[in-house]
Amino acid sequence: MSAHQEPAGRKKWRDGDVDAVVRGIMEGDRQMLSRAITLVESQKAEHEERAHAILDRCLATKHSAIRIGITGSPGAGKSTLIEALGEEIISRGLTLAVLAIDPSSRQSRGSILGDKARMEKLAARKEAYIRPTASSGYLGGTSPKTHETILLCEAAGYDVILVETVGVGQSEVVVDTMVDFILLLMLPGSGDELQGIKRGIMEIADAIAITKSDGQQSGISTISKAEFEAALHILPAKHPNRKRKVFLTSAITGLGISEVWQDIAAGFEEMRKNGTLEERRREQLNHLLNTVLEEMLKKEFYSHPRVAEAKPAIEEQVLSSALSPFSGAKKLIEIFLGSGLVF
Amino acid sequence: MSAHQEPAGRKKWRDGDVDAVVRGIMEGDRQMLSRAITLVESQKAEHEERAHAILDRCLATKHSAIRIGITGSPGAGKSTLIEALGEEIISRGLTLAVLAIDPSSRQSRGSILGDKARMEKLAARKEAYIRPTASSGYLGGTSPKTHETILLCEAAGYDVILVETVGVGQSEVVVDTMVDFILLLMLPGSGDELQGIKRGIMEIADAIAITKSDGQQSGISTISKAEFEAALHILPAKHPNRKRKVFLTSAITGLGISEVWQDIAAGFEEMRKNGTLEERRREQLNHLLNTVLEEMLKKEFYSHPRVAEAKPAIEEQVLSSALSPFSGAKKLIEIFLGSGLVF
Repeated sequence: MSAHQEPAGRKKWRDGDVDAVVRGIMEGDRQMLSRAITLVESQKAEHEERAHAILDRCLATKHSAIRIGITGSPGAGKSTLIEALGEEIISRGLTLAVLAIDPSSRQSRGSILGDKARMEKLAARKEAYIRPTASSGYLGGTSPKTHETILLCEAAGYDVILVETVGVGQSEVVVDTMVDFILLLMLPGSGDELQGIKRGIMEIADAIAITKSDGQQSGISTISKAEFEAALHILPAKHPNRKRKVFLTSAITGLGISEVWQDIAAGFEEMRKNGTLEERRREQLNHLLNTVLEEMLKKEFYSHPRVAEAKPAIEEQVLSSALSPFSGAKKLIEIFLGSGLVF
Repeated sequence: MSAHQEPAGRKKWRDGDVDAVVRGIMEGDRQMLSRAITLVESQKAEHEERAHAILDRCLATKHSAIRIGITGSPGAGKSTLIEALGEEIISRGLTLAVLAIDPSSRQSRGSILGDKARMEKLAARKEAYIRPTASSGYLGGTSPKTHETILLCEAAGYDVILVETVGVGQSEVVVDTMVDFILLLMLPGSGDELQGIKRGIMEIADAIAITKSDGQQSGISTISKAEFEAALHILPAKHPNRKRKVFLTSAITGLGISEVWQDIAAGFEEMRKNGTLEERRREQLNHLLNTVLEEMLKKEFYSHPRVAEAKPAIEEQVLSSALSPFSGAKKLIEIFLGSGLVF
């Protein structure tokens, strides 16, 4: 935001004007949505309180979107496929939000810039909202905050929400608690990697799209498809009644894009009809409740005056091996709960 | 343990005979060490308390071992290299403990059996102690309990501790908080995978060993070595003064095994001399303190009578969308801290 815009921006936030933000989100004001997401991602206590007030109101709207996780290794063609799938979704009269996540490594921390540029055609469409989300140290790009961002996008009325993650295992497990469908992208010829990490990710995938299945790759893609189908046959079923399919796709020729969408839409419709969607939403809320609970508990603990006062001395005793980490932790918890003396 | 041995075993545990266990561990009684590890890995509250009492005493021994994390994808030859490295370590008059970890996927849960069989030559040596550790749902095999197991093995007097992990990213980040050195194993010809996950793991590696560098693979290995060296040159330095090396190794011909050990031993000696080892031990203890603290806090919360009483109703309000997860969490925390009414 440039300097001359700041006063207007500030005014909107003043006095915790939660109503205005919520109204803005519901009226499709993208700037308001983006600000609410920034608030959600903030680490500051006063921002968090306001973010929760906004989320409370947003949840009351009870809007529900088709939530899709899109995962795959770097280079698997995630952004290209998201663009193609996005166009397909728009062509069916639907709107979509893309939570684009940048691969970030623990030490060098990837940049979150450039995500919009990666999907520039889609970014130009008024039916699509693209948001690069900060992964703040979480491996693979998804954090508990991603769930809250999904809720904001739902309140904004988007029909479909695509959550991009990097296939590192942990992030897929996290995203699996928030979405309805996980689409795993694989490159042609990667069938021999079906062990370890990839296998773990395959277990939580609802469908696999083999990307870049065009030109010279077509032959290899067909072989890979058979390999993945065989592998899915062996792996335990994720949903007892849903068959996991493997699609050959190409963002260049458009191969398979429509089929992928139809599979997702049909699966969602089925879930809605047989009640598993409602069940899934309850599970997702329960998971969010526990995540928020544990985050709040930690904050409450670390910011408690008695803990803050006693922690440095106890920490020093632990670090100098005068006290074990177990006894030190116990002491601090007793102090927190008021049953221990500070010194 | 067969039935007729049970009474004796039981007797040892009766009345929380922590002294006997600690004495056993320090005298090199492997059965006692194994039992203490089982206690550490247990989820039961009474076991945890006893485990902490044992750990308190073990920490007081202030034994310090060379702690090495060995990581690599499934199939990279981890167990074979650990066997060869273990023989090298023993040949230098040292003892070692191996915390062998089985790859486990989230849904199908890998078996922990077979780990001993994987390193059967080493398992037959009296200088080596091999323990397959339960990963209990943690991706990649390491859990906070691994740190406590390392402390027990140190108290048992082992000179070297090898912690095996599967290269899935998250587990390496966890193990990096517990060990002094991380050795990354790569197969010849895997240089083209230098992105995404592998890159993240490379950033926390202190050295790379290219395994299976023998026979027909020798040529490819040499190329891979140059590729990895170039990659390490670009990646940010982990320790400002330590040069990360790439080794060609073969468990069959013995190539590079001695060199890998010398690099680790020299690095450790250097750390000991310049004070970074002491600094590292403090960081490790601090990390353990925080991990234990947060685990205890959660347990204290969930087992609190007022929380246990109020949680089902609040949970149901959240799941039926009558209350948001944020308001629900806040209410429960207030109840826990005694400032909220139960209903």
